Amino acid sequence: MRKGVEDRIKKAKSEKLMVKAKSMALQLPPEGLKLHSGGFLSEVVVSYECFGKLNASKDNVILVCTPLTMDAHIAGWYSEEDKEPGWWDEMIGPNKAINTDNFFVIGSNILGGCGGTTGPSSLDPATGSPYGSHFPTITIQDIVKVQNLLIEQLGVQSLAAVIGGSLGGMQALEWSIAYPDKVKKCMCIAASTHLSPQALGFEIVGRKILLNDKNYAHGDYYDFPDRPDTGLAFARMIGLLTYLSPASMHQKFSRSKDESESTEKFETGYDVENYLDYNAKKFVNRFDANSYLHITYAMDTYNPIETYGSIEKAFEKSSSEFLLVALSSDWLFPPSESKRLCKTLLNIGKIASIIELDSPYGHDAFLLEVEYLKPVIHSFLTEELETKQDRVDKINALSTAFEDTPPEVPVLFNLLDDFKYIESLIEPKSHILDIGCGDGKLIDTLYRLRGATGYGIDINLESLVHCLFKNVPIVHGDVDDGLNLFGDQSFDYAVLNQTMQMLKKPDYVLKEMLRVAQKGIVVFPNFANINNRLAILSQGVMPISKGLPYNWWESPNIHLFTYKDFQVLCESLNIQIEQSLFITNSFLSKGFCALGFNNLGAELVIAKISRSSGY
Amino acid sequence: MRKGVEDRIKKAKSEKLMVKAKSMALQLPPEGLKLHSGGFLSEVVVSYECFGKLNASKDNVILVCTPLTMDAHIAGWYSEEDKEPGWWDEMIGPNKAINTDNFFVIGSNILGGCGGTTGPSSLDPATGSPYGSHFPTITIQDIVKVQNLLIEQLGVQSLAAVIGGSLGGMQALEWSIAYPDKVKKCMCIAASTHLSPQALGFEIVGRKILLNDKNYAHGDYYDFPDRPDTGLAFARMIGLLTYLSPASMHQKFSRSKDESESTEKFETGYDVENYLDYNAKKFVNRFDANSYLHITYAMDTYNPIETYGSIEKAFEKSSSEFLLVALSSDWLFPPSESKRLCKTLLNIGKIASIIELDSPYGHDAFLLEVEYLKPVIHSFLTEELETKQDRVDKINALSTAFEDTPPEVPVLFNLLDDFKYIESLIEPKSHILDIGCGDGKLIDTLYRLRGATGYGIDINLESLVHCLFKNVPIVHGDVDDGLNLFGDQSFDYAVLNQTMQMLKKPDYVLKEMLRVAQKGIVVFPNFANINNRLAILSQGVMPISKGLPYNWWESPNIHLFTYKDFQVLCESLNIQIEQSLFITNSFLSKGFCALGFNNLGAELVIAKISRSSGY
Repeated sequence: MRKGVEDRIKKAKSEKLMVKAKSMALQLPPEGLKLHSGGFLSEVVVSYECFGKLNASKDNVILVCTPLTMDAHIAGWYSEEDKEPGWWDEMIGPNKAINTDNFFVIGSNILGGCGGTTGPSSLDPATGSPYGSHFPTITIQDIVKVQNLLIEQLGVQSLAAVIGGSLGGMQALEWSIAYPDKVKKCMCIAASTHLSPQALGFEIVGRKILLNDKNYAHGDYYDFPDRPDTGLAFARMIGLLTYLSPASMHQKFSRSKDESESTEKFETGYDVENYLDYNAKKFVNRFDANSYLHITYAMDTYNPIETYGSIEKAFEKSSSEFLLVALSSDWLFPPSESKRLCKTLLNIGKIASIIELDSPYGHDAFLLEVEYLKPVIHSFLTEELETKQDRVDKINALSTAFEDTPPEVPVLFNLLDDFKYIESLIEPKSHILDIGCGDGKLIDTLYRLRGATGYGIDINLESLVHCLFKNVPIVHGDVDDGLNLFGDQSFDYAVLNQTMQMLKKPDYVLKEMLRVAQKGIVVFPNFANINNRLAILSQGVMPISKGLPYNWWESPNIHLFTYKDFQVLCESLNIQIEQSLFITNSFLSKGFCALGFNNLGAELVIAKISRSSGY
Repeated sequence: MRKGVEDRIKKAKSEKLMVKAKSMALQLPPEGLKLHSGGFLSEVVVSYECFGKLNASKDNVILVCTPLTMDAHIAGWYSEEDKEPGWWDEMIGPNKAINTDNFFVIGSNILGGCGGTTGPSSLDPATGSPYGSHFPTITIQDIVKVQNLLIEQLGVQSLAAVIGGSLGGMQALEWSIAYPDKVKKCMCIAASTHLSPQALGFEIVGRKILLNDKNYAHGDYYDFPDRPDTGLAFARMIGLLTYLSPASMHQKFSRSKDESESTEKFETGYDVENYLDYNAKKFVNRFDANSYLHITYAMDTYNPIETYGSIEKAFEKSSSEFLLVALSSDWLFPPSESKRLCKTLLNIGKIASIIELDSPYGHDAFLLEVEYLKPVIHSFLTEELETKQDRVDKINALSTAFEDTPPEVPVLFNLLDDFKYIESLIEPKSHILDIGCGDGKLIDTLYRLRGATGYGIDINLESLVHCLFKNVPIVHGDVDDGLNLFGDQSFDYAVLNQTMQMLKKPDYVLKEMLRVAQKGIVVFPNFANINNRLAILSQGVMPISKGLPYNWWESPNIHLFTYKDFQVLCESLNIQIEQSLFITNSFLSKGFCALGFNNLGAELVIAKISRSSGY
């Protein structure tokens, strides 16, 4: 038994991805690196790590941007003796979400850091002493500029993708702004163009406290025996608390006291206090106070609106395709800000998808919800680099993380022909919004058959992962809340396929459809079909049929209606029904339809709608 | 014109409630006041204010407990020259929510404070110098003990109500625990039996920072020229940020900079930074660092579970009737904790109501959402002290704050007789849960006609205020989330009156009904009524009738069903229908019912249900 365990450990160890820490001095012009603030750095050294192989066309590079306090060691192991791998090892490696079998993956320590890249604790070549108070103000723009110089010196001219969470997400966005032609895909997790005011407030207070530490010495503390550890520890404690959410704290901390620990006056001894003490101490041992000040300041003051005038202008020239991943309980970068950014990107014609991960873990979810992030990242990054079958196999392997999602709605009548009817109603090369898009099959089909493009919107995350695999951009959300990320008349068609009867506000969604699209296509089960009528009349029960397959008490079909009812609603909304197709499977019903009694015969109605002249 | 304005100002001024600050030395035993921690205070002076008149029976006293940094000046004006009235003046006064025409209202500065009541900055009679580091550890228990000594010296033996928000809410709860026979009504706003772990974390960090201030001098800083103002300012900044919510911060702060303010290195100059600097400075000028330490420590360590073993044991002997008001975005005292407390109180047989105020303003909502809190407080505090007509007039005047709430569902058939049918099905003196109780009229009627008692549950706040006016205790919440605050078999009857067809999960709610009650009474419109059948059969549209009065697309009736459907569901849930009443208004329908074709005839069904033997 024991032998078996040892073997497994040995096997796991032999699979470890080994990596070497590297360092490179940037080749700079004689005046040095010009910074966004106007300052200069005469020398810049960058600490970095590489994974996988650069292909011949040098177009398989993924740059991983790091969060606030993380270094270049993004994955892998330095030696067999290491206790821990790099900080995102779960995500990066052979056959992992960021697949090093396909991609050449680069991570680096950011400018201003203390993990090998030039920062305030580095020696200033002018003096031979640490920069300290002489280290110039840096910005996210400068951090990204250094990364660009690094990849250029590595012989790389463009990125297949840039990806990052938190401060790393801000860098990913800045990449798309500063190097608009270099970045093919930009994935920004738990970040936005600026920090929320509440997070900003806590950061500001943390910095004030650190600056007030009696050992700070205006930043020139490197030669003194005592460093501003106390102030740094306090700032870190505040930071740690902001990365969590009320729910995750509740889960993490009971009200128990560690009775073995003696408490000083005004100390509670509760486990949250011990947690803060322990982690702040650990942090102080691995991080430099000046780096903390400079990097948080860069994060707090980053705001492309200030630099470029507006978000629109900032991203104007970008050729990137975006995926924004927001975390539901993240109050440092709340989902509302990710949505606002997505809306703006869509508005200026960029391809931008958005996902809101439902997680109780606050900002930390970006490091904790690995199992949910894996398929999202994987599906966004695999396009073109794998075969279709590879994708299908992998999505099947990855989608186990979604077991709790609701079952799929059964397909009506076993008629898989509804796409054909829809196809028959649209012009080639139309731009389509599929509302309640499921796995994106409609847009994928219409793309292949009619050269259509389009977006999907759905509430089910698992479905959306399938969309990303198919390269169908998506918006994650509840249709009943409206289509407000999309601008007026952004599409040729908006399609509502067998979803309308499940909506809370079908009238509102219908109006929204014809706001965002020229025309709408609505597919719905007709409650007035003769079989439904007879069920109620003769049996006195709510009908159960192929079109309405649920028990009344558990049915998602909360607003049943007939074709005639649909006509009344359209009329009241000043909507015209341009064309209707009446679909049925039964002989009796077909007879009624043949005679023109469509409201009696149709089991399924497919209607093409547009605004009336008086709209 | 100007004259008119002056007159109005004069008039408003003449309406000002004038008040005097008072002070009283407590009569203590020779050994002094024994504290919860074991320490003693040989002298205790209390600063307090009184409003209204004590009645002859001395049973009209309301004690207002104050939050963390507020003093005894709860309302009114000291002089015509004051710039501001007391901090809760909007709530307290003649004809205000806490009506000083009816009640004798007392507010006091808490023990350990710095607003006139004995605290660390007071002179220690033993030394003639401020207590400083010698001030003993105090608890919420001690704070309440001092308040009790104060009211006893004022000749008061019991309280009509104790009310408080935040730390004041904790005191209100402790009153019900420590003096179980003295408190008739206990209203706890934005508070619970303990602070959330995240709030606790921030409090702990704030205290650590203050204790680390170089001027703190172990608390004996009173004789020195420099006080620990910097540390206190930092602690306050952290506190201020925790009182807000992400949404309220977003509303409050833009990303604008005050360009006129010069910024130091690492200062952002954003308005949130200026807000923190300004308010922390203001606070330092009015508050004592030692008081801040002692009071926050008392707040953080308050936890009746630790003192009494469990919440159940803590409140066991209390004779109070409780109203807990939670604030939806409050993460210091999250609604989940208020619900947990309410559930426990209900479980041990106490009368406890709960309301969750939907507000984006975080913990601060307790001071900001005055217009929503007014009717809630007023309706909870007016019982027995006013006539019915007074109440009706006042609720009409107050309920303007609810204009945004959805319209009421029209009463079915204009038949106001449904109560009579329900009445006919229950035994006298039954204990009843009215699910979707609206204004509480059913329980009020059954109380008057059948001596019934009971609870209402509803999602509409305005309705619940009417319930409180009628002295019907209530639980605020969405029925579809279950009846989980109520224990098994807590009621004789659970009533679902014309609500079932609006539920998302009617089967789940039905099961919940028979978990919390012996029997259920369900009133619903029968979709199989002949008129509905004919509408669908002959016209092919969803019926609109007195029983189903909505257009299909906007109907709240999302799960339509027939009597026969109801029978099927009950059977599948192992529920027996003991008795059914079939109600109709039309001649045709009456005929069917008379012939026994109830599913065809009934417009409204009233069914009495219970668990089958095999349940």
